[in-house]
Amino acid sequence: MSKSAEEFSIALGQAMKAYRLEKGYSQEELAFRSGLDRTYISLLERGKRNPTLYICHQVAKCLDSPLHRIIQYAEDLMSEQPN
Amino acid sequence: MSKSAEEFSIALGQAMKAYRLEKGYSQEELAFRSGLDRTYISLLERGKRNPTLYICHQVAKCLDSPLHRIIQYAEDLMSEQPN
Repeated sequence: MSKSAEEFSIALGQAMKAYRLEKGYSQEELAFRSGLDRTYISLLERGKRNPTLYICHQVAKCLDSPLHRIIQYAEDLMSEQPN
Repeated sequence: MSKSAEEFSIALGQAMKAYRLEKGYSQEELAFRSGLDRTYISLLERGKRNPTLYICHQVAKCLDSPLHRIIQYAEDLMSEQPN
């Protein structure tokens, strides 16, 4: 992955984790609700996967959040980072 | 693809096309700027591809728009559809 892709995956993972914690779900519970593997959720949150948009949409739905809010959170995290 | 996945891909494609047209780019120009194939852009806009989030992020960057705005546009389109 390029540096930019990696940074984006990390910011997205942090955003997903923040929304999951706000919802009070464990990784196991989110995995169960989304039909994804717990290991995959863990990799996503650590920025180790480059998910399809549709997977992000499904995860957002399980977190009762519009996807654009999670993406906005990730974009805000990226813009806060020093260049 | 499930019906829900297909609907989301179609809404996303419409959103990307709307942002591209607003920017005044042809598919060729967006392809050139993003390093993607013109055919791929065309398939994306018609909802025939399920892109990774990073590809969406790259396209959004080439359109000088935060990705969350494009996703929001797609989510708004979806919520306008009758169930």
